Amino acid sequence: MREDRSAGRVTLAQVASQAGVSLSTVSKVLNGRADVAAPTRVRIEGLLDEHGYRRSSPTPPEAPLLEIVFHELDSAWSMELIRGVQNVAKATGMSVVLTETGTRHSPGADWVEGVLRRRPLGVVLVFSTLPDELKKKLWSRAIPFVIIDPAGDPEPDVPSVGSANWAGGLAATRHLIELGHRRIAVITGPEDMICSLARLDGFRSALGMAGLEADPALVRFGDFHVGSGHAHALDLLDRPDRPTAIFAGSDLQALGVLEAARVLGLQVPEDLSVVGYDDIPPAQWSSPALTTVHQPLVEMAEEAARMLLRLRDTTDQTDARIELGTKLVVRNSTAAVGAVGAEPSGGGGAGSE
Amino acid sequence: MREDRSAGRVTLAQVASQAGVSLSTVSKVLNGRADVAAPTRVRIEGLLDEHGYRRSSPTPPEAPLLEIVFHELDSAWSMELIRGVQNVAKATGMSVVLTETGTRHSPGADWVEGVLRRRPLGVVLVFSTLPDELKKKLWSRAIPFVIIDPAGDPEPDVPSVGSANWAGGLAATRHLIELGHRRIAVITGPEDMICSLARLDGFRSALGMAGLEADPALVRFGDFHVGSGHAHALDLLDRPDRPTAIFAGSDLQALGVLEAARVLGLQVPEDLSVVGYDDIPPAQWSSPALTTVHQPLVEMAEEAARMLLRLRDTTDQTDARIELGTKLVVRNSTAAVGAVGAEPSGGGGAGSE
Repeated sequence: MREDRSAGRVTLAQVASQAGVSLSTVSKVLNGRADVAAPTRVRIEGLLDEHGYRRSSPTPPEAPLLEIVFHELDSAWSMELIRGVQNVAKATGMSVVLTETGTRHSPGADWVEGVLRRRPLGVVLVFSTLPDELKKKLWSRAIPFVIIDPAGDPEPDVPSVGSANWAGGLAATRHLIELGHRRIAVITGPEDMICSLARLDGFRSALGMAGLEADPALVRFGDFHVGSGHAHALDLLDRPDRPTAIFAGSDLQALGVLEAARVLGLQVPEDLSVVGYDDIPPAQWSSPALTTVHQPLVEMAEEAARMLLRLRDTTDQTDARIELGTKLVVRNSTAAVGAVGAEPSGGGGAGSE
Repeated sequence: MREDRSAGRVTLAQVASQAGVSLSTVSKVLNGRADVAAPTRVRIEGLLDEHGYRRSSPTPPEAPLLEIVFHELDSAWSMELIRGVQNVAKATGMSVVLTETGTRHSPGADWVEGVLRRRPLGVVLVFSTLPDELKKKLWSRAIPFVIIDPAGDPEPDVPSVGSANWAGGLAATRHLIELGHRRIAVITGPEDMICSLARLDGFRSALGMAGLEADPALVRFGDFHVGSGHAHALDLLDRPDRPTAIFAGSDLQALGVLEAARVLGLQVPEDLSVVGYDDIPPAQWSSPALTTVHQPLVEMAEEAARMLLRLRDTTDQTDARIELGTKLVVRNSTAAVGAVGAEPSGGGGAGSE
């Protein structure tokens, strides 16, 4: 799209005459109106693309909208991201349009036509991608989009917001080492997700810096859900040389680890230290409250929404990538190895909300 | 509005001439356009109301929207309700517009103008109310609205969806009585919320049917959050004649009770049985997994969205009230009184997700 942008501007009148249609037909297509025959629509989109047409100053709608698109609404995460976009929307008098694409990892053509009609100020995509054709349509209408990509696997040429996964894995593991733990297990996410690998590398680097080696038997890949944390922990804690600490790849996995410990009659943190990842609200509500790596989900969504508003003011599509920092939040699920009653009294977390 | 509805229909032309403005000015007001002077707008709204004007067959928008309005986005609840509305929207090719009113318990005039411009198929209000003036505006534009009111305190004349709070309190308490518990404490919600009182009455009735009396010292009012469950439980469990079971008014309060028990060195369910309320996802993730009263939040939101679509097809605003059933979900936080290891092994809940 680079050259397109530098190309001389084409007028809609020119596009109309080349397409052999009226000006109003072209603007119907621009605005995603349904009453244009498919072949005509395709021909016009082709010309808009070929000339790199971009609506210069989109008239700001009277009821401005921000769109947020999820592949799947999942209660642990999605609410934090919705809240972040909502914060920016509320502060600027906008409303938020929510779409769930369901099974497909990218929204369909029907969705984009709706967006063209609604003329939002921008689109935030969570964990989803856009086919080039849809990207071009949004670009030609000057509707910017940003991908929130906590998985850490951004598409080139698309602005995205993520967080520092490697540093998160490092901080969690260092905390456990400082508490004297040496047999530390890790249950990370799926092997094919960049964020799982980044966190695992952070884990390994922390061990390495302390002159320790990761025992391959203590490295597990899970799926970020409670069940996988529970199953891996039952297996890990059943070993004679069981780990004294487990770093879980998500708070949900960590909750599964807590339940496995309870079932096996192990006290957390006295017999086992547990660190989660994400710091979603349930991490504060568990007993004991979870020590976890705070992933700034709300702030990531706020940043994505602000990027959209900034992108509107430039005619140039940036390919910015922003990674927000992660930080360790120490609560009651970790203690010095072998410590008894080392945990702060009063049961912190639960009371603190 | 009853008489209004039965009144002979007035035409927009009549309204225009009575207001001394052009027809297009009237339709601008109908569609919430900003470019009409305030006094004119007020005069026209007045005439529309006086004549009980109602847009007869609203043109279905090309990108149909459902609106959901929250007083406050709270991660424990809101996600379930959003998901319910989203389910219906997705099934019918609609998008969902999300608005958070923040501190105010009803959306403002700015919000309603946005709604008039967006022309949604309907509006779902969560825990919020509409001033009569806004109700009239939506009614005259034939934009139906439904209130999701889990608090059980519906406004007359507004369609609403709730759930069976009294029956929920009854079922939770009966379950504990059947397990042999006699010293049963209850931590319910705020004293001024109908749902708290309904659940408490269900609790008292269950005791009464079993020939038991509620010990006033074991009846507490909380605020539905983790902290109040935690604080009340610390106090209740510190008594010489401590209860053997606690029925909490929400899952969050129940999580606070679990943490209090852990801090006091009490095992759940061996030393203390705990029942929650709501059955939000974290109830399955806690250790032990919570026995709780399932409040069908997703289904309540789905029902509200379906009511909107039905209301569109009638010219008459119904004042329907639907209450969906609640049901007890038995997990691992309750056991026979004094039982040891009575709980199913394997740690059910956490593994089951």
